[in-house]
Amino acid sequence: MNDVKETGRIEAFSDGVFAVAITLLVLAFLPPPPYLTDNALLQILLSRWPELLAFVTSFATIGIMWINHHRLFTVITRLDNALLGLNLLLLLLIVFVPFPTALVAQYVVYPTQHVAAILFSGVYLLLATVFNLLWHYAAYENRLLSRKVNIETVRSITRQYRFGPLLYLITFTLAWIYTPASLVLNLLLAIFFALPCYPRRQAV
Amino acid sequence: MNDVKETGRIEAFSDGVFAVAITLLVLAFLPPPPYLTDNALLQILLSRWPELLAFVTSFATIGIMWINHHRLFTVITRLDNALLGLNLLLLLLIVFVPFPTALVAQYVVYPTQHVAAILFSGVYLLLATVFNLLWHYAAYENRLLSRKVNIETVRSITRQYRFGPLLYLITFTLAWIYTPASLVLNLLLAIFFALPCYPRRQAV
Amino acid sequence: MNDVKETGRIEAFSDGVFAVAITLLVLAFLPPPPYLTDNALLQILLSRWPELLAFVTSFATIGIMWINHHRLFTVITRLDNALLGLNLLLLLLIVFVPFPTALVAQYVVYPTQHVAAILFSGVYLLLATVFNLLWHYAAYENRLLSRKVNIETVRSITRQYRFGPLLYLITFTLAWIYTPASLVLNLLLAIFFALPCYPRRQAV
Amino acid sequence: MNDVKETGRIEAFSDGVFAVAITLLVLAFLPPPPYLTDNALLQILLSRWPELLAFVTSFATIGIMWINHHRLFTVITRLDNALLGLNLLLLLLIVFVPFPTALVAQYVVYPTQHVAAILFSGVYLLLATVFNLLWHYAAYENRLLSRKVNIETVRSITRQYRFGPLLYLITFTLAWIYTPASLVLNLLLAIFFALPCYPRRQAV
Repeated sequence: MNDVKETGRIEAFSDGVFAVAITLLVLAFLPPPPYLTDNALLQILLSRWPELLAFVTSFATIGIMWINHHRLFTVITRLDNALLGLNLLLLLLIVFVPFPTALVAQYVVYPTQHVAAILFSGVYLLLATVFNLLWHYAAYENRLLSRKVNIETVRSITRQYRFGPLLYLITFTLAWIYTPASLVLNLLLAIFFALPCYPRRQAV
Repeated sequence: MNDVKETGRIEAFSDGVFAVAITLLVLAFLPPPPYLTDNALLQILLSRWPELLAFVTSFATIGIMWINHHRLFTVITRLDNALLGLNLLLLLLIVFVPFPTALVAQYVVYPTQHVAAILFSGVYLLLATVFNLLWHYAAYENRLLSRKVNIETVRSITRQYRFGPLLYLITFTLAWIYTPASLVLNLLLAIFFALPCYPRRQAV
Repeated sequence: MNDVKETGRIEAFSDGVFAVAITLLVLAFLPPPPYLTDNALLQILLSRWPELLAFVTSFATIGIMWINHHRLFTVITRLDNALLGLNLLLLLLIVFVPFPTALVAQYVVYPTQHVAAILFSGVYLLLATVFNLLWHYAAYENRLLSRKVNIETVRSITRQYRFGPLLYLITFTLAWIYTPASLVLNLLLAIFFALPCYPRRQAV
Repeated sequence: MNDVKETGRIEAFSDGVFAVAITLLVLAFLPPPPYLTDNALLQILLSRWPELLAFVTSFATIGIMWINHHRLFTVITRLDNALLGLNLLLLLLIVFVPFPTALVAQYVVYPTQHVAAILFSGVYLLLATVFNLLWHYAAYENRLLSRKVNIETVRSITRQYRFGPLLYLITFTLAWIYTPASLVLNLLLAIFFALPCYPRRQAV
């Protein structure tokens, strides 16, 4: 095999898993019972704002993680066993996301309940950690990076990723204290991490 | 990265999301109870015409939106943060479509009920709006368009897209007045928007 | 756009829809109630042979249809509005398949019941018809075929496809008379249509 | 068609099926009832360790099988009828995996129950067997292998695959005797098979 990208099919498979996982999030919205009056239906739909919040949070987070995965694999162009294993571990966590999402949607209305939010933010903490492991494994002495990679790009990714696990550790800790704050911070984090990914007008 | 398409993997991911979302629509069809006689089963299936109408409407609309997404990304060949964000927002709405579809299927038999149809057509109104935002963002001063793009193609897309939000605003308004009319217009719109996308025999 | 394949993304999207639809078939297998003894569980699983038969039939049929779709699009390399519309119609029917599959699994144990089997075989009849329409539309005066297409390949596809709708009309008719015969013939048809698709050792 | 890979679209379709099947595994996690106290919710979640074990086992196994599929198709570059049929049979088994997974999750807490574990390990035994059939069919006298294939790669795959069915036969036999041992061995096998797939730093 020549010097070109070895990672085409791992990206295609990962894209498929991301796409299915992000789309399955909608299954958390069970249709309300039939035969309701307009008023009753409206009440039920409005009372579901926590489900909507959890859905938007998870969608944004998985979306951002896909963007980050995409970004890493423009720089990572070679494979080995450990990378395949770390990528599978990452996908396992992504695939698991709809379960804590459905759970947190059920329990977030009780700010004094913590178990659901702890599981939810715990999964995101693990996700941020595995992302860092995967990146550091691939970038260590340019092990699996493209031979033409820009050193500045590698450094900027390393710099940005340093804070991921720390920030998600804060949302995880908040989940033990005050659930809504944890969920809102999770959403803010997703938006924040989306921002510096692609410098405007620069190729990816 | 050279001057060629930067958007390959964003298209692959979006294709995956469109494909899953359009296929999940079938989950709205729950199997009827077992042990029915032929007559009873036939009655139940025939009474489900609203589910079928909602399914066909959503399938056609998501299908048309995929065609339009495909069309835009033959012209859009570069990426930046805002485009990735707008594309994710578009996919979030696409992914959400099965929920109002299932809802409208439950409630469309009551023409005096409006909440389900308002949500349903509201989502399509948002979809048409985000499509316009994405296109105008990318096309503004050819920001993210291919450098070899045909100026006439850009103008024809801009012209066609101008009316999308307006027409879906009409279906949204109709949903407050007479539900069935809104749903039928939604279906007609999908068919209408499918037509001028690809001039016959012309490359896409 | 040059003379090369225009159909890459329509194939990617269709592959996604086929892949999701064929995988969703497994959702027809609801887990049995918990807390059963080994004997009771075994009885329940064995009593589910009709579900398994319907699953295998649908899986084989969708699989064969994917093979046929794949085959057509090695010859069809250009697009127009009508082809996109026909392809969407084909995918709509593919996506609908899990519903009649779940239905027929519930009712096939009653050979005197016909409604489920009629719907099931009716969908396959429509599928075979749309496949023929799509092929004849694309092949008429080589409208959308590759300019380097082998005339013998075109003729052999046309010849093979001629009998599809007729044979599925027979399974449809059988469904009105004797349900199990219709389902078994459907399975045989899937196997039969798989055979001549790829002459052994010849490129596709 | 030239001498290049004929198998691009079969890989894309298979990737899609693998991606959907591995993601649907999460549907085995039904959300617990709402309105529980933190303690009650925690108890329920902790009591679900068998579901988690089954989920991780199946995810790892499907993931490893994808890696193996990927590996085979870097060497297999041509198609014929039988290969398409064997690949469909393989995908049918992959797609079926979520059902025995959900089943084993329900029954694994009763070590004296065997039916669920027998079905579960039986499916994996069939999977290992079909993988071997597919490989031996393609590799027999280099029937469908790339003309530039390394003879050492072919031999190492053949050697590694020889033990798959035997080892899964042991997990199948254990399921008749002591269910938990079978499930744990299944997990160990998945990890073991992952290891030698890609010699470190070597192209795939």
